[in-house]
Amino acid sequence: MTAEGTLARFREYMVGPARFMNLLTCFELGIIDALRANPGMTAAELGTVVGATPAAVEQLLFLLVKEGFVAYDEASGAYTLDTLAEVPEAELKGVVDFMHFIKVVTLRQLFYLTESVRTGKLVGLREFYGFEGTLYEAAATHKDIGDPWSRVMNATTARIDPWFFDNIDVPSGARVLDLAGNTGLGAIHTYKRKASPGLRVTTFDLPEREEDCLKNFREHGVEEHCSFIGGNVFDSIPKGFDVVLIKHFIDMWDKDDVLKIFECVNQSLEVGGQVHILVPIYPENVKDTDNYTIDFFPSFFLGCSMGYGGPQKLSVYRSWLEEAGFTVTQAIPKDPADLPPYALPVQAILSATKTA
Amino acid sequence: MTAEGTLARFREYMVGPARFMNLLTCFELGIIDALRANPGMTAAELGTVVGATPAAVEQLLFLLVKEGFVAYDEASGAYTLDTLAEVPEAELKGVVDFMHFIKVVTLRQLFYLTESVRTGKLVGLREFYGFEGTLYEAAATHKDIGDPWSRVMNATTARIDPWFFDNIDVPSGARVLDLAGNTGLGAIHTYKRKASPGLRVTTFDLPEREEDCLKNFREHGVEEHCSFIGGNVFDSIPKGFDVVLIKHFIDMWDKDDVLKIFECVNQSLEVGGQVHILVPIYPENVKDTDNYTIDFFPSFFLGCSMGYGGPQKLSVYRSWLEEAGFTVTQAIPKDPADLPPYALPVQAILSATKTA
Repeated sequence: MTAEGTLARFREYMVGPARFMNLLTCFELGIIDALRANPGMTAAELGTVVGATPAAVEQLLFLLVKEGFVAYDEASGAYTLDTLAEVPEAELKGVVDFMHFIKVVTLRQLFYLTESVRTGKLVGLREFYGFEGTLYEAAATHKDIGDPWSRVMNATTARIDPWFFDNIDVPSGARVLDLAGNTGLGAIHTYKRKASPGLRVTTFDLPEREEDCLKNFREHGVEEHCSFIGGNVFDSIPKGFDVVLIKHFIDMWDKDDVLKIFECVNQSLEVGGQVHILVPIYPENVKDTDNYTIDFFPSFFLGCSMGYGGPQKLSVYRSWLEEAGFTVTQAIPKDPADLPPYALPVQAILSATKTA
Repeated sequence: MTAEGTLARFREYMVGPARFMNLLTCFELGIIDALRANPGMTAAELGTVVGATPAAVEQLLFLLVKEGFVAYDEASGAYTLDTLAEVPEAELKGVVDFMHFIKVVTLRQLFYLTESVRTGKLVGLREFYGFEGTLYEAAATHKDIGDPWSRVMNATTARIDPWFFDNIDVPSGARVLDLAGNTGLGAIHTYKRKASPGLRVTTFDLPEREEDCLKNFREHGVEEHCSFIGGNVFDSIPKGFDVVLIKHFIDMWDKDDVLKIFECVNQSLEVGGQVHILVPIYPENVKDTDNYTIDFFPSFFLGCSMGYGGPQKLSVYRSWLEEAGFTVTQAIPKDPADLPPYALPVQAILSATKTA
């Protein structure tokens, strides 16, 4: 690439925040819904409906017309949905939920990315919420963060979990531990998708999650098959399980901590015990432009969710599992073609067995 | 475009803020400077130099390697500047200044874009600075906003003013009024580039700018040829001038206010009097993908600088000048090829004469 090409690429980066909020604001104001309900509205009519000046509506819609999302008829001054009309409303709701999550959880917080990297702490959460800790802790007490985060996590889980359970082996009657299983959703999915006589699934997480977790088990009618153990992954992992699941967790940590988790899991298992991991991964070819995991996650983990951590390549996780004493039995990246076109993370499944 | 293509385009928008700050943080931490000084550093070495963990350095550099800005040697773990090595340092400084401006003036403030559009006020400035007013007022009292803003404005002025003065006619001995001329820089440029026997240039702006303006005139040795008149453009514009300049100003207002300014200028001039305008414009073809004015300015004016306003197409400004009683004599857009490849606004010159 020439110097000129490099700087032109910088320009794409420079308009990133502006483009993002210009588009999202059109949804937040209700302009898109209004145009779906009444195609052919003018800026003045839209302004009345959404509570903005016609001039502001015009300014905001320039970008959407440029992109072909919305069409503008110069003669009548009327706007209609263009390519946006073709996107099913449910998909559009999914993408707008994700954009709202990005706005709330990242946009302001990223202002402090440099300071967060220097300190290993989430300076943005401290500045905007007076909160010391991780996003996941903040989500529990700050509803304005917790709600958008849950919506996106639940949508991702609903999409990915079936694929995960279709691809892992849970022997009949196995004793399964869902590591860092939060409030039990993973355990419930495990029981429902892998049910067999005698199957028992245990959620392992911080003691303060116990109450919500047991409530969830009762509400899903699995309380006879699922249980909860309180503890901290970095202290010790309970023994007596045949299968350990680690979903949406190891990407939150740097190498030393991931190795520690793997080693503790290894120690907790008998020979022949299995671990199944679900985790977003970076592509083996970092320059793969169809993959957006690299575009989103480094700043997300460093500046918005943990202050450290971040995904790795599948080959790296595989080597860390081996370093911790496991024999890797499968390593499957999700086919990006099976994800919605707006999905940012590409997940993978890693399975491994304790062999000695 | 298919629904799939539309949603894939949304994904580009969704990673916009993350990409922007990931890249800027690499500059802020000093990673790029370190690699320029010592090519071939590992993440561990870089981490020591910039004060970050090796894991965080690795995470941040994934994106720069993906883009080809930086190269990574898998075998040695060493990073070197790749395409970034080819960009002259002065240009890189210009683009990083602009990115810093975008971070400080827009990134957090855009969180409140929807509320700003609904109220016509800069909610972001109020939330982050407790400031009621415009960016230009805030820049005067908040150095952390004012400094990055001045750097970008001065660089833009230095680039654009020579082109402006090369293309406008200032008759020998003319009396020139620089409307909303701030602290005199435009008047100084006018005198220096258009000097003729008897030429007088007057800066017209709010009375509180007088002191700084006169100081600038003295420092540039033009105090015998330049003067200051205090007042408000929307009250009345002083009479007795042959030429009125309006630079970097009308894009700040919506149509009604721009028309009011044009009409007041028209009333202040004798028949034959001229107005020369410098303003960023949107392209006539809104779908012109090489033009980034539309990507940046709507949310900038609505959410970060005024709470209203924003550029228009050249043809729109032309028609508004005619509506205010002027005969347009020239309307020249800047050739984007003459701008640095990272420049966001494309400027235009409009000249008009009072004919009746």
